[in-house]
Formats: sequence, C-alpha cells, structure tokens
Amino acid sequence: MSDHTPNTVIQSRDRLLKTAKTLHMAVWHEDDTGAHLEQGQAPFIRQDGHFYIYSSHLSAHIRGMLAGGTASFMLIEDEATAQNIWARIRLKFSAEIIEIGRNDVQFGVICDRIGAVHGNVMQVIRDFSDFHLFQITPTEGVLVTGFAAAYQLEGDAFEIKAHLRSD
Amino acid sequence: MSDHTPNTVIQSRDRLLKTAKTLHMAVWHEDDTGAHLEQGQAPFIRQDGHFYIYSSHLSAHIRGMLAGGTASFMLIEDEATAQNIWARIRLKFSAEIIEIGRNDVQFGVICDRIGAVHGNVMQVIRDFSDFHLFQITPTEGVLVTGFAAAYQLEGDAFEIKAHLRSD
Repeated sequence: MSDHTPNTVIQSRDRLLKTAKTLHMAVWHEDDTGAHLEQGQAPFIRQDGHFYIYSSHLSAHIRGMLAGGTASFMLIEDEATAQNIWARIRLKFSAEIIEIGRNDVQFGVICDRIGAVHGNVMQVIRDFSDFHLFQITPTEGVLVTGFAAAYQLEGDAFEIKAHLRSD
Repeated sequence: MSDHTPNTVIQSRDRLLKTAKTLHMAVWHEDDTGAHLEQGQAPFIRQDGHFYIYSSHLSAHIRGMLAGGTASFMLIEDEATAQNIWARIRLKFSAEIIEIGRNDVQFGVICDRIGAVHGNVMQVIRDFSDFHLFQITPTEGVLVTGFAAAYQLEGDAFEIKAHLRSD
C-alpha cells in the first residue's frame, strides 16, 4: 500500500532508521532453570538490510539469543526528541538471527565498521571472547507513529504494507 | 551492601528514576493462536514505590498483560544523554501488576496525576474504554551503569543488594 501511505509516515520510518543508534531486544527462552524473559539493547549498524550488533553473553538476553530463544527487536526515538511522549515513534520487528563466528571473513570487516560508527570501545572489546557478533535480518514488523497510526511492515527494507487498527 | 556501593551508582539509579518519563515493557503470553513476545512503552508516574501507566489494549503487549502474561520492565536513559552509547544506564525489573478499575476510588486521583505530569492527552483518552490503568510494583531488578557494572536490586525502592558479574 506504499502508494497510499502518507509521506509523513515514510519519513518517520526513514528518519528513525537513520538516527537510532541502539537496538532494543526482548528475548524469551526456557532452560533447566525455568523460563526467562530478558531485555537489553546494543549499538548497531545497518547494512544491506541486516542489523549487526556485538554484545556479551554476560547479558542474559544474549545468552537467550545464543540458546535459540524467541527474540523481538525495537528501534525507538529518544524521550527528549519525541513530539508527544504518549506516542514515541517506534519500529518493532521479528528477525532471523545468525551468529557470525570469529573465523568468518566478514567478522573483521563488520567489527571495523561498528568501530567506525560507535567509537573506540570496539577496539577494547573486540578480542573479548564473551562478545558475539550477530547478523539480524528483519522479517516483519510494525511501525507506530502515533495514536491509531500503526503500519504493518514487511521484509528487511521495512516496506509499509497496511495501516493497522492496533499494534 | 548499600554501605559499600559507590555513590556514583546510587546517583545513577536516582537520576534515572527522576528523569525517565516512559516505562518499557516486554510481555510474553500464550493463547489459542500461539505464543507472543511483544514490546511497548508508556508514560508513567511513580508514587509510594508503585509505577502507574494508562495504556490501550489495542497494543498487543497490553493485551498480554491483561491476559496474565509474563512481563519485564525497563527504564533507560536516552541515547543522546548517554555518556557511552555502549553502556546506556538502565534499570530492569520484574513486578506485581494490578489493574485499577474505573470504579476504584484511586482511578480518578491517579489519572489526574498522570495528566498533570504528562499533559493534556490524558484528558482526551481518559474516557476511552480501551485504556487501562495499571499499578506496577517492582519486586526485584538489575541496574546497569556500565561495562561490568551491574547491581542487583530488591523491592519497590530498588535497594542495591549486590554487585553482579553479569546482568
């Protein structure tokens, strides 16, 4: 339905994708000790439709992702930037998750790019063995731009497919 | 262990509690259609150790909460405010959740206070029947103030109990 989508909605999506620096994650997983619902976030880069993050398994949500748990992702504008605190612009999505191993040819290239975007911390943590590089490829999602303004998204380009009654 | 907790950690906790305007939620629930992992956020007020939010069941995470799903909550500083984008200060917690009905004597008082803090939108949505008032009382949590700086929290005052190796 992109032809009928207001330009302001497309602009909101694109501005959020351009300005957001961190990816929020919620992860559900079950193991011998029970069921766990965890939240976290990490600086990301986005390239060719893939998000990449580099995070430590000392965080429970990363352990959950490594264990094959169910994950949900979100970008959201800052509180201070939001025109209306009741309707922060946000983009929620599900994704395919792949860990890129340290021996993969892509590993160094992507770590370099994360460092270029997010600073020197990357040089410090790059060799820490508790950190993992993930490729996160969106499959479907929802963009919320205000009250009664939710839009169904499809694919890694977040193509706008429909105006939703609920999010 | 509060006696041994660095003042900067206590200050980080208190500053986040004072400045954060919205509460992040992750909710897991299962129904006839399958299992659902949802994220959302809402403006809150905090009073006597309780958080209060007023949100619509048109959002899937609110439907999940109403259905008795498992919920996890988070406060997090803005990206723009974070000194280090790799370590945004955040406070994650689990909680007891109670819906306060429209006939409850507290309903009007709390809605007034939410409106006073978060503006005129409250007057518009106050009578919308898809909105629900929730009282959210923290039970335990984790404060993260940086790399290797995670602290176990207990109770609705977020008392700092221990320095953790992981979060």
